[in-house]
Amino acid sequence: MLNQKRIRDYGIKIGAMEPGNLNSITDIEGVRVGHVTICDGDAQTGVTAILPHQGNMFQQKLLAATHVINGFGKSMGLMQIDEMGVIETPIVLSNTLSIGVVSDALIQYMLDQNDDIGVATGTVNPLVFECNDSYLNDIRTAHVTKEHVFEALNLTKQEFAEGAVGAGRGMSCYKLKGGIGTASRRFKIDDRDSLLGALVMTNMGQKRDFTIDGKNIGEAISLVDGEDQKPDTGSIIIVLATDVALSERQLKRVAKRAAVGLSRTGSFVGSGSGEVVLAFTTKNSVSHYKNEKIETLTRTHEDDLDILFRAAAESVEEAILNSMITAESTTGVEGNTRKSLQEYMQLLTS
Amino acid sequence: MLNQKRIRDYGIKIGAMEPGNLNSITDIEGVRVGHVTICDGDAQTGVTAILPHQGNMFQQKLLAATHVINGFGKSMGLMQIDEMGVIETPIVLSNTLSIGVVSDALIQYMLDQNDDIGVATGTVNPLVFECNDSYLNDIRTAHVTKEHVFEALNLTKQEFAEGAVGAGRGMSCYKLKGGIGTASRRFKIDDRDSLLGALVMTNMGQKRDFTIDGKNIGEAISLVDGEDQKPDTGSIIIVLATDVALSERQLKRVAKRAAVGLSRTGSFVGSGSGEVVLAFTTKNSVSHYKNEKIETLTRTHEDDLDILFRAAAESVEEAILNSMITAESTTGVEGNTRKSLQEYMQLLTS
Amino acid sequence: MLNQKRIRDYGIKIGAMEPGNLNSITDIEGVRVGHVTICDGDAQTGVTAILPHQGNMFQQKLLAATHVINGFGKSMGLMQIDEMGVIETPIVLSNTLSIGVVSDALIQYMLDQNDDIGVATGTVNPLVFECNDSYLNDIRTAHVTKEHVFEALNLTKQEFAEGAVGAGRGMSCYKLKGGIGTASRRFKIDDRDSLLGALVMTNMGQKRDFTIDGKNIGEAISLVDGEDQKPDTGSIIIVLATDVALSERQLKRVAKRAAVGLSRTGSFVGSGSGEVVLAFTTKNSVSHYKNEKIETLTRTHEDDLDILFRAAAESVEEAILNSMITAESTTGVEGNTRKSLQEYMQLLTS
Amino acid sequence: MLNQKRIRDYGIKIGAMEPGNLNSITDIEGVRVGHVTICDGDAQTGVTAILPHQGNMFQQKLLAATHVINGFGKSMGLMQIDEMGVIETPIVLSNTLSIGVVSDALIQYMLDQNDDIGVATGTVNPLVFECNDSYLNDIRTAHVTKEHVFEALNLTKQEFAEGAVGAGRGMSCYKLKGGIGTASRRFKIDDRDSLLGALVMTNMGQKRDFTIDGKNIGEAISLVDGEDQKPDTGSIIIVLATDVALSERQLKRVAKRAAVGLSRTGSFVGSGSGEVVLAFTTKNSVSHYKNEKIETLTRTHEDDLDILFRAAAESVEEAILNSMITAESTTGVEGNTRKSLQEYMQLLTS
Repeated sequence: MLNQKRIRDYGIKIGAMEPGNLNSITDIEGVRVGHVTICDGDAQTGVTAILPHQGNMFQQKLLAATHVINGFGKSMGLMQIDEMGVIETPIVLSNTLSIGVVSDALIQYMLDQNDDIGVATGTVNPLVFECNDSYLNDIRTAHVTKEHVFEALNLTKQEFAEGAVGAGRGMSCYKLKGGIGTASRRFKIDDRDSLLGALVMTNMGQKRDFTIDGKNIGEAISLVDGEDQKPDTGSIIIVLATDVALSERQLKRVAKRAAVGLSRTGSFVGSGSGEVVLAFTTKNSVSHYKNEKIETLTRTHEDDLDILFRAAAESVEEAILNSMITAESTTGVEGNTRKSLQEYMQLLTS
Repeated sequence: MLNQKRIRDYGIKIGAMEPGNLNSITDIEGVRVGHVTICDGDAQTGVTAILPHQGNMFQQKLLAATHVINGFGKSMGLMQIDEMGVIETPIVLSNTLSIGVVSDALIQYMLDQNDDIGVATGTVNPLVFECNDSYLNDIRTAHVTKEHVFEALNLTKQEFAEGAVGAGRGMSCYKLKGGIGTASRRFKIDDRDSLLGALVMTNMGQKRDFTIDGKNIGEAISLVDGEDQKPDTGSIIIVLATDVALSERQLKRVAKRAAVGLSRTGSFVGSGSGEVVLAFTTKNSVSHYKNEKIETLTRTHEDDLDILFRAAAESVEEAILNSMITAESTTGVEGNTRKSLQEYMQLLTS
Repeated sequence: MLNQKRIRDYGIKIGAMEPGNLNSITDIEGVRVGHVTICDGDAQTGVTAILPHQGNMFQQKLLAATHVINGFGKSMGLMQIDEMGVIETPIVLSNTLSIGVVSDALIQYMLDQNDDIGVATGTVNPLVFECNDSYLNDIRTAHVTKEHVFEALNLTKQEFAEGAVGAGRGMSCYKLKGGIGTASRRFKIDDRDSLLGALVMTNMGQKRDFTIDGKNIGEAISLVDGEDQKPDTGSIIIVLATDVALSERQLKRVAKRAAVGLSRTGSFVGSGSGEVVLAFTTKNSVSHYKNEKIETLTRTHEDDLDILFRAAAESVEEAILNSMITAESTTGVEGNTRKSLQEYMQLLTS
Repeated sequence: MLNQKRIRDYGIKIGAMEPGNLNSITDIEGVRVGHVTICDGDAQTGVTAILPHQGNMFQQKLLAATHVINGFGKSMGLMQIDEMGVIETPIVLSNTLSIGVVSDALIQYMLDQNDDIGVATGTVNPLVFECNDSYLNDIRTAHVTKEHVFEALNLTKQEFAEGAVGAGRGMSCYKLKGGIGTASRRFKIDDRDSLLGALVMTNMGQKRDFTIDGKNIGEAISLVDGEDQKPDTGSIIIVLATDVALSERQLKRVAKRAAVGLSRTGSFVGSGSGEVVLAFTTKNSVSHYKNEKIETLTRTHEDDLDILFRAAAESVEEAILNSMITAESTTGVEGNTRKSLQEYMQLLTS
């Protein structure tokens, strides 16, 4: 997308499955992504918004599930997804200390679209996910405003930038530059063309562990560049979207396989890292108001889930690599710098 | 406390155990509660803050656990408590659509107290709990500001008001006036004097179900007053504090018994009601920074937990009744009114 | 059923809803219950079997969910239900130390019905639930055999005995005689006649807490009869069946409301008590082998669940009372005796 | 151990940490493992027993936790571990359809050691874990008897065989021969020498995914040998032991990192695979009977857990490889054969 050189452009194919047209979460029909990037001296942060579909999310909720790989994080909205099995707002990513302002903005965005919330019907469950970008970003200063959130929501489109953009602007991954990445897989279940895509915001890992397609490159980078001895206190946010008919229980099963892809990039899931997965399907929507006496939902036979599990594992692994390889070296607060993976790719061939 | 007539003052004793001195969560040493009440026409809402101890919560975390009775809610901070077993901020309650601004304020409050957050150490996990007060409060308008949160935190004290105050200002319980209530129990484990207290914010239930000490009064009130046919889409927040040495697993077990007290007031836990419990102990604190090579914690033998379970069930049941009986009748948005339980107590004796 | 005098026959109506024809879990079409009672001196135990439908359970699985109120127990099969959302065998209840032989028998029963298990397809997940009947039963001696399990499965029928029968033979409830009890509720969702039923095996509680329809009778019994000071180390097994179209997530929500009914009989859920709920619907079945490319399941709108929650709470409360009032006084090992609630009902009127 | 050629003997080092003396779970003081292997034509199965310490497990329980990677399995005892945070019996592994007889034997073993169970105190929670060995073993025939369990428990020792032995006799891994494997890691926390070990029973995976130290070898094996198209319906049991002072919550965190090691051997965690982790520490024991008024437990600061997470990931990855490389090619029921990884190791160097 957008002429960025991605990991596949280096000849690296993750897994055996084929990617979707854009190799992006936006291959799934209706899914759109938008960024606002804040990049001004000590302020290296931003907002990334995901629209799960193009209609009114509150009126037409999507079946969804979450999985917490490691719960050192402040992401919002998980409890109600677990209870009700649906999402009812766009998904917004930002830095950890901005979750208040971001959720405030997302609530207002939903109120503006829905006159009935808080009057004729209940409230709304804002989905806000975060990582701690304080290595590059002056996180104690409130750079993110409500307007940034509205703007990111309004800028959502099918082709979007990866790397040091949006909420990923200040993120670090394996002590190199991280950020936003995406990938997708297409496959058939019976005769139906199907898609699953992942979007990640990467901010976890220790340098020496970093692994590309099974090959450790982190140790070589450490030799060249010095090892960063700080612990893994990062976080990764993983959003999975599919157009396959799944129940919320099945979506949780798919979400759990994100950890497989993550593990293969070298992470052992550090104690201080908040690692959270959200999975949704665009196939099954549920009306906020009761329209029918009985809801009819479709789902896939359990025996057919394995291909989705593979797709989730592969997409997440590739999305993480894309988040790094597309990210430019970045300098932020206190002169801290994270270098781009681009500068080290030649170490892989040796 | 504060000369309010509480449920015991009507001759009603819940359970067989004795209350603490104040019959309040603030019987537990170090626990303090503060309110800011917003009460101006359509604005009927507020903020209630709980300080778990008087020191620096981020530096000296307390062992804690959560329990979700029904997850239709937006409370913040649960995921990290489950993972790490501690709380590290005060607890702030407000209305559902104010969680953004409240968490933003609580983050700022923590930053102001701790120079190292986001610089030399990680971020902080704000604890914000909410109920939907839209029946009485114009919830779509952002009446709660960050200053209200700071003020509530600064006003915390041992003796505090119950009823239609603070975050409880606009809340409804069993379609009567609800709000903030508290109760406590004292008991001995071996020869040690021990305490457990509950604070609740009540906003759940259908009128006909309301039960006082095993006796249904809701049907009689409905006969006099008309049944409110709207579903139970309320929520209840329950905070338990104890000075008994417990592990985080044991605290979760205690938290689960809150549902016993809740059930006995008549609730069947409605689908649209967010019912969340947080339990902490002031006995075991954990340093943010590693001071000792090995941490030593004490805990109570599993065979001695039953008395805590009883105390939790009794305290929650009584706290719910206190939240109602101390609350004055209140009129808010669109002229909606919730009457005080005070007006119906005579129905109980008939 | 079967001419036993049940709690309703004493004029006590739990809740406001109407029971089904038999006021039994077997009101749900296809559900059958069978007992084998072992009653010989020190041997006071047995087996109770529940058939969820009359077909081949392995080939036609039913959507199901579990809820653990307190996990001090050894019931088998829960992990796979949580993962796959279905049950695939009958449900068998017995005493704690017989779970090995009972599961062994249930596996054999399933193998006999299904030639393909362990050859052309995977294995099978036996559902075995238990309480500790050691107060009346010489539990260390293996009185229960595989033949008892086969016999109970073969004896399943719509009208079955309650009280000190089957697996309930040696059970105690509130230190009186417990055992097997059932109840049901009928209701309409839109224009559809619907049913939910509960079967319980009761073995929990302390005498002084025992409460009938909101009225504590346990203290009066203790005064007459002496308080049993032993802790609550019992357990209760609760099985819920419905013919309403529900997803497995919705069934878990229904299962959680069993705790409401339990709490209202006086229990605070003791530390040493294993309290486990299984809920299934006969409406949605899932084929073991994939027959269709896409499965179509129906479910009820979330807004309509409240009536099921009420039905679950009421049915469980009444089933517990039925398990006690139908149980005769029983003497077992070491001359231990549990008296029947029948002997104390006059205390309720005073 | 025992002169078997293990994966390290092929020059393959997993991770950067050093193994313990035996590179085995039995490096942790007090842990012992015993096998009974049944190997007779169609009967290719067995029993493996793990003693967590050499004392009375019921009297001196160990802190423990479980983690379910994928819940398609029938392992017993997890619910009570989650509730109470301890294990109180040895751990016994066998085939799926033998869990009844194995748990029956383990209960009897515990009764024989403890006169008070079921008389003066409660019951006991047997820990039985299983995989489905039906590809090689005639699993429908009950080859495993109670005597095999007693024998395995009696044969436990520090040096034990790996591969196609004990409960691992009939297991398959990546469609090659699997079985029992072990590995360990030693490390320092502050100045304290510490150990963590893993024992696995491997029965999962598809051939083409199999990966050794980041290098896929499964595709090469498939080319030589033909791809087995059957789905991943296997299972893996993972037991972790450590001598580090951890709470049960911390042990659950360690248990979750087993999935990292598993993922790196190529598995994407198939839908029909039961993947269960049990972790315990020998450092903190809890008395069944209350001896002290307050229990004092030690634990490690959360910031020091990362080294344990690494140790868990590395140990599990290496234990899986050891389970395969030590296993001889095996032929069982219907002439089915699983070849040894030994036959394919030359493919790795190409």
